[in-house]
Formats: sequence, C-alpha cells, structure tokens
Amino acid sequence: MSKQEKADPDEQTSEKLVELAKRRGYFFQSSGAYGGVGGFYTFGPQGASLKGNVEDAWRDRFAVAEGNMEIDAPTIMPEPVFEASGHLETFDDMLVECPECGESHRADHVVEDNTEYEDAESLPIPEVEEVIAEYELVCPSCGTGLAGQAVETFNLMFATNIGPGDSDPGYLRPETAQGIFVEFPRLKEYARNQLPFGVTQIGRAYRNEISPRRSIIRTREFTQAELEYFVDPEEDEPDLESVEDVEVTLYPASEQHSEGGDELETTIGEAVEDGIVGDEWVAYFLGIAKPWYESIGVDMDRFRFRQHLSGERSHYAADCWDAESEIDGNWIELAGFANRTDYDLSKHDEYSDDRFTIFKQYDEPKTVERATVDPDMSYLGPEFGGAAQDVVDALETLAERDRSAFESDVVEIELEGEGGGENEAETHEIPVEKAGFSVDEETIAGEHITPHVIEPSFGVDRVIYTVLHHAYREDEVDGEERTYLALEPEVAPTFVGVFPLQSDDDLESVADEIVSDLRKLGLSATYDDSGNIGRRYRRQDEVGTPFCVTVDYETIENEETTVTVRERDTTDQKRLPVEDLAETLAEIRDGDLEFADL
Amino acid sequence: MSKQEKADPDEQTSEKLVELAKRRGYFFQSSGAYGGVGGFYTFGPQGASLKGNVEDAWRDRFAVAEGNMEIDAPTIMPEPVFEASGHLETFDDMLVECPECGESHRADHVVEDNTEYEDAESLPIPEVEEVIAEYELVCPSCGTGLAGQAVETFNLMFATNIGPGDSDPGYLRPETAQGIFVEFPRLKEYARNQLPFGVTQIGRAYRNEISPRRSIIRTREFTQAELEYFVDPEEDEPDLESVEDVEVTLYPASEQHSEGGDELETTIGEAVEDGIVGDEWVAYFLGIAKPWYESIGVDMDRFRFRQHLSGERSHYAADCWDAESEIDGNWIELAGFANRTDYDLSKHDEYSDDRFTIFKQYDEPKTVERATVDPDMSYLGPEFGGAAQDVVDALETLAERDRSAFESDVVEIELEGEGGGENEAETHEIPVEKAGFSVDEETIAGEHITPHVIEPSFGVDRVIYTVLHHAYREDEVDGEERTYLALEPEVAPTFVGVFPLQSDDDLESVADEIVSDLRKLGLSATYDDSGNIGRRYRRQDEVGTPFCVTVDYETIENEETTVTVRERDTTDQKRLPVEDLAETLAEIRDGDLEFADL
Repeated sequence: MSKQEKADPDEQTSEKLVELAKRRGYFFQSSGAYGGVGGFYTFGPQGASLKGNVEDAWRDRFAVAEGNMEIDAPTIMPEPVFEASGHLETFDDMLVECPECGESHRADHVVEDNTEYEDAESLPIPEVEEVIAEYELVCPSCGTGLAGQAVETFNLMFATNIGPGDSDPGYLRPETAQGIFVEFPRLKEYARNQLPFGVTQIGRAYRNEISPRRSIIRTREFTQAELEYFVDPEEDEPDLESVEDVEVTLYPASEQHSEGGDELETTIGEAVEDGIVGDEWVAYFLGIAKPWYESIGVDMDRFRFRQHLSGERSHYAADCWDAESEIDGNWIELAGFANRTDYDLSKHDEYSDDRFTIFKQYDEPKTVERATVDPDMSYLGPEFGGAAQDVVDALETLAERDRSAFESDVVEIELEGEGGGENEAETHEIPVEKAGFSVDEETIAGEHITPHVIEPSFGVDRVIYTVLHHAYREDEVDGEERTYLALEPEVAPTFVGVFPLQSDDDLESVADEIVSDLRKLGLSATYDDSGNIGRRYRRQDEVGTPFCVTVDYETIENEETTVTVRERDTTDQKRLPVEDLAETLAEIRDGDLEFADL
Repeated sequence: MSKQEKADPDEQTSEKLVELAKRRGYFFQSSGAYGGVGGFYTFGPQGASLKGNVEDAWRDRFAVAEGNMEIDAPTIMPEPVFEASGHLETFDDMLVECPECGESHRADHVVEDNTEYEDAESLPIPEVEEVIAEYELVCPSCGTGLAGQAVETFNLMFATNIGPGDSDPGYLRPETAQGIFVEFPRLKEYARNQLPFGVTQIGRAYRNEISPRRSIIRTREFTQAELEYFVDPEEDEPDLESVEDVEVTLYPASEQHSEGGDELETTIGEAVEDGIVGDEWVAYFLGIAKPWYESIGVDMDRFRFRQHLSGERSHYAADCWDAESEIDGNWIELAGFANRTDYDLSKHDEYSDDRFTIFKQYDEPKTVERATVDPDMSYLGPEFGGAAQDVVDALETLAERDRSAFESDVVEIELEGEGGGENEAETHEIPVEKAGFSVDEETIAGEHITPHVIEPSFGVDRVIYTVLHHAYREDEVDGEERTYLALEPEVAPTFVGVFPLQSDDDLESVADEIVSDLRKLGLSATYDDSGNIGRRYRRQDEVGTPFCVTVDYETIENEETTVTVRERDTTDQKRLPVEDLAETLAEIRDGDLEFADL
C-alpha cells in the first residue's frame, strides 16, 4: 500500500482531542443551539488565542522577516474577477443526488470509496456516470442505487448579490490570493516597480463543500495565510544558500507512482541539485516552511512535503508541492507551494482594463530597428475618401509585421468591405512611394513583462488542528491519569498560570503582583483561584500552559520571597525567588535558559 | 442649526486624504481593474499595519485589561439565527427604484435630502410614498419623477446558500455579536457559570448597503470590534469609581430636541449622578472608551458621545450612546454603547433547543413551599385507562397553579377529548384523597436567570478613517510645502525609518545594524535607500513615521558613532550616539522620554 492511500484510521486521538477542544474552549461546531451546520466552527477563547499566535508567527516569518508587504482585502469579490481567474468555470465538484433520500454526495468520492479508481475527480462526467451504473454504486446515506442519476457539476463558490436585484453577482473568495492579484497594478507601485516583491494576506476564504468533514480539517469557511511572490522568471533567483542545509522529507511524484516507492530524506540543497524539486523558488519556500512548522510544534516525524501528481495540479500550477502532516495514520494537506507562472496576471490583463505587467528596465538601453510609415495623405485622401484612415492603419500594421511587403513598387493591403465583416475583404494596391515607408533605429529603455508568481499557501485551521493533535499527551501522575497538551511556548494561549494556594488576601495580593510583572514582560499570564491546586494544574495542563506558579504560605512567611514553579511536561517543581521570576521565565520562553538547569 | 444636522461639508481634507491613502498604500477601492464595486475597500500595506495596530490596541484594552474572553466565529451563519435575532424581519432599508434609469435609492434619504423631514426612516412606507408624491421628488441620478413608484423594503443581509440547492439559506453576519450570543450556552461554561463576564470578537461584518458612500465610512464589508458583557441586572455593578473623573463631551437626547441645545462638558461621575447617562454600565464603558480613542490619536476637540433619539434606537436597545467624531464638519458614528437587555438571549432561548440562561446561586439557600401530588394509580389506572398519565399531568399542573382546587373533597380537572384539540375538553372529577396532594417545604439553591447584555460595538474602518483624517497636516518646511500624518506612535505602521545617506557599503551596513537593533526591541523599522534624503523624509512624513534616522559620513568617521534623528512633526534633528539609540527610541515610544528633552 502506498503511503498516499488512506491507512485504516485510528481516530481515537482525534475523538479525544475534539472533545477536549470543545470542553476547554479551543473549537466547536458553530450554532449548536440550532443543531449546527456542517463545516462551520467557532474558535473559543483558547482557540482564538492559539490562532492569533500562529498567525503572528506566520506574519513574522513570511511577511516581516522576508520584507514582504501585507494587505487586507474584502472577502466578497465581483463576478468578473472569477471569470478571469477561472474559478467560475472550473472550481467545482461532481455531485450526485440520491433519488430516494435526496442527500447530495460527491460522485468522485462515491466512486473512489467503492471501486479501484483512485483519482475519480479527473474522469469526465459521462465516465463517472458509467462507473456508477457498472458497479451498481449506492447512496452512502440510505443504500438506494444511484445508477441512472445524473452527475452534475457544482461550483464551490458561495454566491450572493451585491446591492438590490441580481445584476451584480458577487462571490465569497475561494482563496485570498485573488484579492492580491487583482490589485497588482497598484501593489507594484508600492513596490516601486521593482521585482521581485512579495505580498501576503491572512484572512477568510470559503468553499461550499458538498460534504464537509473531519472537524476543522475540511470546513466551508476557513483562514488562509498566503504569500504571492512576484518574480522576473528570466532573472530573479532565490537565496537558496540560506536554506540549502535544511533537512526535509520529500515524497516526489515518481516515488508515488512506483511500486514500493518511498519518502526520501534529503536537504533542500541536494533536492535541487538532484532535480527532485525542479523549481528553485518552490524549493526556497519549502526550506523556510519546514523550520517554521517545527517552531510552532508540528512533529517532524509526522511531516513531509509531497509533490502533486500531474492529474492533481490546479489549472494554473506548473509544479506544486504540499506540506503534509500525519493525523491518526492519514496524511492531510497543510500548505501548497506552487509556481502559478504568469497564469493569473495574464488572465486579469486579458479580462480587465488594466495592465498586469511591470516595466523591466534594461541594464543598458537597447537599440532596435523599427519600421514605420508616413503615408502621403494628399494622395490617400482623394483616392480612398472616408476609408483613408483605415488604409493608414493597414499600412502601419503591415510595416510592423512584414517589411518585405514594401520592397516592390506597389504595396498590397486588404481592407474590409463596406458593412464590416459581412462582405469580403478587398485588396488595394498603393504605390510604395506614397506609403512613406522607412526603417529607423530606436533606443528603448526596457520592456513590459508579466511576472511569474510563486505561491506558498497555508491553511491556518489545519495547522492548528495538527499542532493540537501532535501535542496531545496522556500519562500518569501520582497514580492518576493526566491529559495535557505539550504546546510550544510560542503558540500556547497562556504561558504561565498563577495560583494563590488558598483564598487568602496576602497570598492573593502576591499572586496579583506576579501576574502584573509577567504581563509587563509580554508573557501571557492567567490568574486562577478556583478549586483545589490539583484541579487547577489539570486545567492548565489540558489547555497546554507550559508553567504554573503557586504562591503558598512559605512565600509570605520566609524572609526571601519564593514561589513554586511547575513545568507542564515533566511536572517537576522548583522554588524560585519572586524577585527575578518574570525575567527567568522570559529567558525560558526566549530559549536562552532551560527549566531543568535552574 | 443643531449640531446633529449636516454642516455644509468642506470635503477638501477628505479628498486629499483619500488621494494620499491610495498613493501611499493605506486604502483604496477594491477591484479597480474591473471598474470597482461600490462599498468594498482594500487596505494596502500601510493600512493593514495601521488596522492591525488599532485592533491590537482595542484587544489590549477591552479584552485583556478587562479580563474578557476573545472568540473567533464564522461570518456565514444559518437562517434560524437571524429569525431569532430579528434581522430577517427588521434589518432593512426603504428602497425606491427610478422608472427611467433603473437606479435604486434609499427612499428615506431622498425624502430627508429634499424635504424638512429629518427622520424619514421611522415613517411607515405608505407615508413615505405619499411624501414622495406630494413633494414631487425626483431620482437623484437622472431627475425623473418618483411619484407613484412603490417603496419597498430591502433586507440588508447578504444572502447565500449553504451546500447544494437552496434548502439551507445562510447569511453573512450583519454584526459579530450574533456569533457570540448564539454560543452563550457554551461560553457561560468557559466562564464557569459566573456573572458578570465578557466576550469579545474582532472580525468582518456585512451590510448590503443600497448606496455605499464616503470612502471607508459606509462600506458593505467592514470590521467590527465588539464586546458583549453579560451581567446580572439585579446585582452586578460596574467599577464606576475607576472612570468617574474621565472628562467627556456629551450630547444627550434632551439637548438634541431643544432649540439651541448644546453639548455638555462633564465627567462620567457627574453624568451618572445627574442622570444624564441613565445606565451605569453604559457610563462605565464610555469612561473606558474615551481615553482609548485619545490614545490612538482621535482629536478630542472633534469627539463626543451622542445619545440616540428614541426613534433611532435599534429594536433591542434600552438606551444607546454613540461615540462620534467630526470629519470635515460632519459627525460620524464610531461606536455604539447599548444596553441590549435580555433581548438577544431571550430570543435565542425561545427559538432554539438550548437554554440561554445562567444558574444564579443564592447567597443562602431559600426555603420555599411547593405543592405536589402523588396520585393513587390503583384508582386512576382502572378508571382512566390509557388517559391515566394525562390525569397525573393535569393534577400536577393544577397543584402548581392553584392549591385551593384541592381544598374540597373532589378536584376537577380538564382533559382534552379524544382526537386532541378537535373535540371539546372534558371535565373529570377525582376524589381529592386519590390525588395524594401535599404541600412540602423545599430548599432551593438558586434560580435560572437570563443575563442582560451591555454592548460596546466599535467600527474599525471608521476609526481608521478618523485617525488618519485627524492626523492629516500640511505645513511648509524650508520653503517647500509638506504633507504629513501626525499619527500616534502606538498605531503608526512604522515607528522609525532608517536611511544610509548615500549608496555606500559602510553606511549601509551601519544602517542595517540599526534596523536590526530597533526590531529586537519590538520597534517597527523600515530601511530606505532609494532617492535623495529629502524625498525619503517626505515619503516617511506622508505615511506618518514618527522618527527618521540618517547614517552619514560623520557616523563612520568620528570616534563616537552618532546618527541624525529627525522628529516628524517639528522636523527637528539631533545627533545621537548609535550605542543606545534603540533604547532611547523605545523610551520615547513608551512615553518615558520626550524627544525635545534629548
């Protein structure tokens, strides 16, 4: 069995995680009071905080550190944008409706789940209908036969109307990317017309999934963090040296195709050298992404980059690799790294009134020959009357296209007959000396080029799910079962929990002061005085708080004021002086100190 | 003229600001390449940064400092939510379509702009139609008479369908608030069932405006920052003392009604004492909001709180005050502070299957008398057969409702006839000794109450517009006109611009190091080496960067390494040692040091 196929999922951890996420305020299905709607989730207080931390970490790495610009565009966009982008035409799934229960299903999923077909999405619709009939496939909900039911395409964009009436259809963007592409003519000005430059956006995107599933992994409304990096494909090169030693697990298309094919352990530098990752820009961003995922807590033993198979690639992508994480034996897509070439900018250039190119100045101006005409109007006017201008235009076009046409005494041009295209074109002969033909040298400073786009596109919800899932731990402490989330301090919603041992004014005021000292150093701290200490520890363990500080009677009775600091994963406790507690914890957070060395 | 009426607007500053915003990357109309769509704006790199800073400042004050929880809910919500909230029924505008040009207009605006009616929105539709006919009002676009055209209501929610088909209508939320209310049953658990508690959300909201206008002030997609604060109306009280000395400009309803009425200068404490702000919770949040607006750069001479007139209040609000800012002589709404009472939670309790109440524990358990029955089934069974349980239910209900019914020998109950409601109810007599009636004392620990909600609701886009508008300055420097934005350091997209004087490796490497030192201290710094120094200063002035640092030859030639630091508003320059430059600028940002005192 190839690794891409689904392993028999042991969903235990996922089930427990989803329960914990709901109980502790990470995430839960929205509008539960009304029975819920598939594919919509709300992040509770812990989840919103984790999400914000992950977004900040992404921004620091992919926008700030790379010197890219971040923008914030609307989620509703007008129809012409998606005519140009191709989403109106091609962003759809195959749908088959059960004649008995009325449930709609993805036809390709029904086929894949019950036949040996592996990539039913790439089959033409009539063939899918045939397969359904041939295999006598049935409705997954009620078991009624689906043979003979029409398979239809269903566009996955949420549609709405802008303003009264239906004359201005709009769609919720299926990717944040289009909000960047469509503003390229303006964004290039902010970049002072210099390639390469990158633009990022973190925001909502929408897919009206037929069957959303698996918690926050496949939802109808989700958050993307996307970088569109515009490059001159002829000249710009990434700083591969800075990432060449990054070790990566790769699963190239060739290995996926071959019997017994397997993942490769290599480095970015070697992968480029060996031609495994063909696109250097894509390789560069893989090299940045891997340590980033590691820093926020994705388990690198359950992480890989997988190349798209040719049938799997989007309509715009030249090459594409996905970042994937393993969840209960299944690999899920976390991010895509695609070279979208000039597809999007060319399309918007074609469909809109604006120019989606950039003026590329040559290092030195070039001298080129240019053929022009300067027709003698005193001849053309009387000869052609109202059509004289058409003759001029035709001569100009001809001069640009075919200089040899001006080599004999007479030049032939074709004019449309009266009434436009309805009549045959008429051929006219013009004496060449009346055309004023000449070839001149011209100095040009540069040319308009359409940049290519490299796109690292991250799903925020999926990485949150992965980070929580990979952090989920169960152990036994003092004979009692314990559940905790081993979250990285960088993304944990709370860094320190602070507890007064008992309800006591003196203890509480010391605890209050500690919270305020911690916050001054930018450490997120939470105060908790409810329930016994064991219960408070368990609460912080379950939300993944790395440290807890307890203020007890020793704190206020001894000369040197000290508190107990407990580390989440080991449950080791140490007594530390209050005086430099905040600084010590800040050093631990910044990685300059280990708790074990205290 | 009362201040609420529109002054003849001098739109000069707005026009200049909108031009600057577009040129410098603050904001611009979206999808301009396709002609743009009214009411949708994109925040460019500067705008997205300013917006992020304003959101962070709001989060710090209204979530973190107040100990409230932040959540993040979907923007699409299912129809039943808005049936309950009332938006499906009442969230609409009056629309009149021109019979000639087909343009749709807000009928109330057409009336208000051309008659003496001031609050046409509160008129019934037939009356609006009469006014249009009577005054012979015409289409604002083409001048065609509108008399006789039907005025229709237009719901302002963007509608869409969830999943295939149209069986699951959904709407883009018109306020982030509903994403909080609908999850109350879960959120109260995170608050450990203790009132008061607050939940915040920062996110997109949508209004399908008939005629969006005035740049980012009235758009169709915008960002809200809302706090829903749940209180026990009988017991919870705000910490008014902490805000009583906050000075505010108030414009109460009574002053708006009276001839020559004017704004009042007072304090929160006095306003409550004098009964001007009747709701103490609303007063508390006004007291927090005012210094917050000041801290992010809203000009307090162009800021006030205005009470809603009774006809103007939303369907749910008991009392409401708006924060308003003056823009070119017009007052615009920045935020609303409403007591929504138990309206929303009661509605969701009524419409959904969940309970939107909280269990309120009494300080001491209460003893209450409770009447119960314990019927003799050996009598009822044979007597009533299958209807015996109905008899038990009827006896229980009666005992709770009317104890006196059990005072005679026989108790009368009514049962529905066979076939349910179709037949008349039948009266039955039961010997009272078979009912097992008794009155017992019961100890109860508390009761279920529906919390009231206080809602400070902030518009993020409008405050950004205000902050930019109030920061817009023109002056003359060295005989040249200069435009700059006097933004507060807390929200300015960039805090320091760093320039090497000329293209020179030595200068550039010092400048690079300075940028990296500044960033380490959390100061946002930008490096610029393009164009002459004057041009770079102008660029930073226009985007509102408070300080610029220039590295020149003195820097690298002298023994003590120094640089020029220039302050934006005064353009004063000082030479400072590089060694403690970052620390010095950090102190200035934190308000611990003044540039003038260096």
